[in-house]
Amino acid sequence: MEDFKNLREIMTESEEIFDGEVVHLFKDTVELPNGKTATREAIRHIGAVAIVPLTEDGKVIIERQFRYPLNRVITEIPAGKLESKTEDPLAAAKRELKEETGYTADLWTELGTYCPAAAYCDEVITIYLAKGLHKGTRKLDDDEFLNIREVPLDDLIKDIMQGKIADGKTQVGLLKTYCVERFSL
Amino acid sequence: MEDFKNLREIMTESEEIFDGEVVHLFKDTVELPNGKTATREAIRHIGAVAIVPLTEDGKVIIERQFRYPLNRVITEIPAGKLESKTEDPLAAAKRELKEETGYTADLWTELGTYCPAAAYCDEVITIYLAKGLHKGTRKLDDDEFLNIREVPLDDLIKDIMQGKIADGKTQVGLLKTYCVERFSL
Repeated sequence: MEDFKNLREIMTESEEIFDGEVVHLFKDTVELPNGKTATREAIRHIGAVAIVPLTEDGKVIIERQFRYPLNRVITEIPAGKLESKTEDPLAAAKRELKEETGYTADLWTELGTYCPAAAYCDEVITIYLAKGLHKGTRKLDDDEFLNIREVPLDDLIKDIMQGKIADGKTQVGLLKTYCVERFSL
Repeated sequence: MEDFKNLREIMTESEEIFDGEVVHLFKDTVELPNGKTATREAIRHIGAVAIVPLTEDGKVIIERQFRYPLNRVITEIPAGKLESKTEDPLAAAKRELKEETGYTADLWTELGTYCPAAAYCDEVITIYLAKGLHKGTRKLDDDEFLNIREVPLDDLIKDIMQGKIADGKTQVGLLKTYCVERFSL
């Protein structure tokens, strides 16, 4: 085992700054490995899931969604927050896929987890590959707006390699799917 | 061109919640495409860079670093924040690689950008592949603690596909490097 004593930080104080719908922000004080103190800004997030819905002919159901922080519409795989810290991520993935795209799936494979911003946020996104798709009717929330498209995985990978897809979970989900499907990694 | 009028949100009010070292948090009000209003929590981030330093024999210089929000040590590629919103990302990448690992590099290739959490944060990380490495002496900040290792890219990809590497920018950087180096994508 690696000895992490030279790396570990110990929390000595914690101040809640903001408790929002998505962002729960704390400003904490930690003791560093050298005995000095430092400040850490940490967002506590409920956790989320993302899904790569792959059709039999190699297309992915993707979304075009306006993201307010970026002030533009971006390409994303379907995704959503957990309803509670303890919700089963697979159940959440099935719910989000159905709500956002209308699809259900027979075959679910976990593609691992993804921490978007470990420096200041504890969010963990569990990513799934969903195959054996069945079309249905989507049930968006009243205030949720997104467009759905089917795009060949190969085209999306080309876009990712050319830097045209910015979203992190989407890059990870699609690249892993490509490695699994094409190279059996 | 796609018509995004059915997706766009317009900011009508903005409240600054917290202006920290890393996290600059706003709680804004937006007008939705259906005319109703909603709240958006948005973190404004200065931007960052990440580097995949690849040796001639196919190893990556990676870091083991304690990440306070996750409360554990994780495997990451070298990375760091820009010094200003307008800093050249390539210059920042060269600085961070040198400071954190001691290495300089002759060949720099951009691997695209990465938005870690588009739902609530505007951070953009530009990722670079760095080759033609030269060993030097690292210059960590006094209060920066991280361990450096050389690990074969193939082993890291295996770890990613098995879900053993959680960090988002690290998954994206290494998967893209693998696609470039192995499959000339």
